[in-house]
Amino acid sequence: MKRQAKISNAVIKRLPRYRRYLKELQKKGVDKISSNEFSNLIGYTASQIRQDLNNFGGFGQQGYGYSVDSLYKEISAILGLDRQYKMVIVGAGNLGQAIANHTYYYKAGFVVCGIFEINPRLIGIRINDIEVMDYENVVEYVEENDIDIGVICTTKEAAQEVADKLCFAGVKGLWNFAPVDIETPNHVAIENVHLSDSLHSLAYHMNRLNEEKN
Amino acid sequence: MKRQAKISNAVIKRLPRYRRYLKELQKKGVDKISSNEFSNLIGYTASQIRQDLNNFGGFGQQGYGYSVDSLYKEISAILGLDRQYKMVIVGAGNLGQAIANHTYYYKAGFVVCGIFEINPRLIGIRINDIEVMDYENVVEYVEENDIDIGVICTTKEAAQEVADKLCFAGVKGLWNFAPVDIETPNHVAIENVHLSDSLHSLAYHMNRLNEEKN
Repeated sequence: MKRQAKISNAVIKRLPRYRRYLKELQKKGVDKISSNEFSNLIGYTASQIRQDLNNFGGFGQQGYGYSVDSLYKEISAILGLDRQYKMVIVGAGNLGQAIANHTYYYKAGFVVCGIFEINPRLIGIRINDIEVMDYENVVEYVEENDIDIGVICTTKEAAQEVADKLCFAGVKGLWNFAPVDIETPNHVAIENVHLSDSLHSLAYHMNRLNEEKN
Repeated sequence: MKRQAKISNAVIKRLPRYRRYLKELQKKGVDKISSNEFSNLIGYTASQIRQDLNNFGGFGQQGYGYSVDSLYKEISAILGLDRQYKMVIVGAGNLGQAIANHTYYYKAGFVVCGIFEINPRLIGIRINDIEVMDYENVVEYVEENDIDIGVICTTKEAAQEVADKLCFAGVKGLWNFAPVDIETPNHVAIENVHLSDSLHSLAYHMNRLNEEKN
């Protein structure tokens, strides 16, 4: 898949959104969509949509629009969503439990295999039928079960140490919810989810709208 | 604050990150930082940093660097974080509880005043000493307590209806965690948090790193 080499990060960031809207179209039984119709739906300009999708060789046919099914499949393949990922969650507090429940809806694509905790009161409980295990055993578990992704739902203070341990054990990606930027070795992908950043953006936009009103 | 009028969305998106790093510097007792030092820390280029911060009139003095304190305060003010926001959470499941716990750490800035639920088994429990109330009473509560922000932690199916109700009741912003894009009237700001988009980006980057290795 060498064609991926030149795709910018900005385009990659938009692909999951395209995919979500295509999924909704599939559910509604829509077969074809023009870039103009897609634009009305998704809120990007038609020219942006054509430009973005041209990165992948262009799936649209002049006058026919895009095939919803094949575009969905192609974007899924580009994102690597045509395979399964095995995950462990570290931290079984509310956030860890929320993520375990949330990823349950991804069904086949992202499977939470184990949840790890240091708090003895949580070790042994089951969340969505997944056992909460002792964090002491996380390295062994990741190695033996070929885990792809580690999800960090710990405190800010523990996050980097947990990340180091998971990388050592062989995960290929980290999904970090602790409110700190985590460092990983070059061969391990990282996605830091900063909930507060999103809340602060919201505050900014609320104040802008308020200023415009006054 | 008319100077804000021309700041691009891309810059705004980076401000919370600048602010987070400045906070860490403050904690470490650092007074001044040059754009080069800041660049090493935050991972943007020094020229990007200078360009971004120039949007606000430029706080840096040639040869002196930026004052950590005043830059922190200025960015906080631009984001509107120099005041308090009152929030309600709708949906007291794991995610709602996780967000209630999470925002607890924001202390003074964002205060969760109430949590609302339709499930009778959850109504009446306390989360971080915040009472879970009957969703039936949400409009009245938002109106009477001048709530600024509604946090949507419901299912995808319920999200838009909840949003409409909160907007009707007078919130100025919505922070949406349901996996669907919510529509709001023009005067209400919206921040959709799509956790799956971030997981899909992670999958993409994992596969890219894997290709590079092979």
